[in-house]
Amino acid sequence: MRGISGGEKLGGMRDPVMQPQRDGPQRVPIAVDAMGGDHAPDEIVAGAVLAAREGISVLLTGRPGVLRPLLARNGALADIKIVPAEDSIAMHEGALASWRRPRSSIAVACQLVRRGLAAAVVSAGSTGGVVSTARLRLRPLPGTLRPALAVVLPTRPEPTLLLDAGAIADPKPEMLIQFAQLGVAYAQTGYGIEEPRVGLLTIGAEPAKGNKLARRAHELLDGEPPHGGLPISFVGNVEGGDLLAGKVDVIVTDGFTGNVALKTLEGAVSYATQQFRETLTGSRTARAGALLQRRGLRELAERMDTETYGGAALLGLEGTVVIAHGAAKARGVAAACALAANLARGQITEKITERLGPQRGGHFLRRP
Amino acid sequence: MRGISGGEKLGGMRDPVMQPQRDGPQRVPIAVDAMGGDHAPDEIVAGAVLAAREGISVLLTGRPGVLRPLLARNGALADIKIVPAEDSIAMHEGALASWRRPRSSIAVACQLVRRGLAAAVVSAGSTGGVVSTARLRLRPLPGTLRPALAVVLPTRPEPTLLLDAGAIADPKPEMLIQFAQLGVAYAQTGYGIEEPRVGLLTIGAEPAKGNKLARRAHELLDGEPPHGGLPISFVGNVEGGDLLAGKVDVIVTDGFTGNVALKTLEGAVSYATQQFRETLTGSRTARAGALLQRRGLRELAERMDTETYGGAALLGLEGTVVIAHGAAKARGVAAACALAANLARGQITEKITERLGPQRGGHFLRRP
Repeated sequence: MRGISGGEKLGGMRDPVMQPQRDGPQRVPIAVDAMGGDHAPDEIVAGAVLAAREGISVLLTGRPGVLRPLLARNGALADIKIVPAEDSIAMHEGALASWRRPRSSIAVACQLVRRGLAAAVVSAGSTGGVVSTARLRLRPLPGTLRPALAVVLPTRPEPTLLLDAGAIADPKPEMLIQFAQLGVAYAQTGYGIEEPRVGLLTIGAEPAKGNKLARRAHELLDGEPPHGGLPISFVGNVEGGDLLAGKVDVIVTDGFTGNVALKTLEGAVSYATQQFRETLTGSRTARAGALLQRRGLRELAERMDTETYGGAALLGLEGTVVIAHGAAKARGVAAACALAANLARGQITEKITERLGPQRGGHFLRRP
Repeated sequence: MRGISGGEKLGGMRDPVMQPQRDGPQRVPIAVDAMGGDHAPDEIVAGAVLAAREGISVLLTGRPGVLRPLLARNGALADIKIVPAEDSIAMHEGALASWRRPRSSIAVACQLVRRGLAAAVVSAGSTGGVVSTARLRLRPLPGTLRPALAVVLPTRPEPTLLLDAGAIADPKPEMLIQFAQLGVAYAQTGYGIEEPRVGLLTIGAEPAKGNKLARRAHELLDGEPPHGGLPISFVGNVEGGDLLAGKVDVIVTDGFTGNVALKTLEGAVSYATQQFRETLTGSRTARAGALLQRRGLRELAERMDTETYGGAALLGLEGTVVIAHGAAKARGVAAACALAANLARGQITEKITERLGPQRGGHFLRRP
């Protein structure tokens, strides 16, 4: 069922750089799905080249005939390997269409991780397609019920992680406890937060506030972690208005509410930005004023730009998949590579297995 | 069960102005809960006075000993009636605490509507308390399963209505169809939109996207309205990023998702506003620039200010309750009064009954 028929196509595999290597800092490359994204493959290749110049080991999956000239144009033909993948999944294709496409660039990238030939995956492909492919090609970590998407919210000084922001629309309450464990491992690995504070997204401060799912999840988060898992610093309920408040490090919710909240947030920030921009350039005096503020406005735009944050991480599988924004350009792809490398180097999958506890088959980490 | 023991306390009732009057434009006053809200009673009274000066007939419910001096200070003692209510519900008190308090200012206001002595209710009290009191004191309209909160989103040129933004956390899919009918009646009455476009809030454009509730609601909205209800112009799914896009006139969702989305929206807009403000005043040059933009920025702040929009309307009961923001000051309260008067004058309850259809006991409108 889970066999990858495209295995023999993984052309770069015999190269020594491509052999499984776990010693030293990130010698195993990040597999970048070169064919996924609104601006694929041009900007994806450019992003991978940027990442490589910053010292991150990357490889590309996709059509060599297309990718080779792009690498050449970037002067990186000798530095970045291409692992052939004949098929690719278009941005409009959803989870169903993507499911059984073993030779797609994203499937090949996942397969490389499964074989230990890549440390993590980066893709700017459609979230539905990437999630369904990853769930089929990478096995769940022992003890995880379902993987979740962790999204980085631009709070300061440290970002807040929101999960699940869209992998599972109808989770069981128990899954939200696992999301908390995934998020805690991420906050520790990615941001060095020793004891991340966890909040539950709902519609009021009192424990009894929310729908059935949130009320039950509150009870579970308040109790002992199941299966001998590590304890969670649960600080209680948070509301929609707290997403950017930096009150907690990890916010858990179901993938339906999380995805609505995330898109609402992005929409509102971009709406407000546009309104301000119109105001600041609406009259000649205002335009003169805006000139005087150029530097501050540019910095602000950068901070609010989702591209700076790398992307969402699909956690709970035997390898991490970082999903960059569909509209990501080179800089966004490079940031996603840096995030993926960072999580892989910090051994996030091992940390997650440890957090989930030993009593649920957690005594083996990976197939050798 | 539903008897109002505080009835004999409704002191103003014998006054001729207080008798039920349905002839002419808004002769029946709006009952303003003077004791609910962060700035009650001072700002509530000031808001009611503002509304009265704009030609809206209002009365206050609350403690006469407290309210009379406030009216006197505003020079409105002769213009605005006080209906005594000894009890009041504090902002921190939730739905449970508010439930059986027949002499609270909000319960008395609802009772006035039930008796035809007021046309609608305005309160800035805690949403939980107001909703639970209204559900107990005002009967559901024939054919409505549960009332819903309709929130006005500041899109242009016409606002978009979001419901349910928090009255029912776990509705049945059928209730979302009713929310659509309530919203359509509101958009027609409040904004004169002849055929309001209705969207379903979910996490993707395709009908199959979303959780179980949203998927079933999509099917129902796509079909014939039940119980001989009037047809709905359902245009399909919308996402969190579309809340401010003005693509549709009415957006329906469950009260959990709606409330999270609403608070996320408010939080994000206020975050962005603060970030811009800091940028615009962060350096001396930037401050000089901001001076040149003063007028545009003031207008923008006004447009994004929730106080301008009056508040959320609880629809589906035999009387409309407008819930102003808890932090509403005089201007916000006055806007809420204007909205309540507008909806009452437009006979929204009658329109809702008509829309819901005749096959579900909808052949009587009110108890005489």
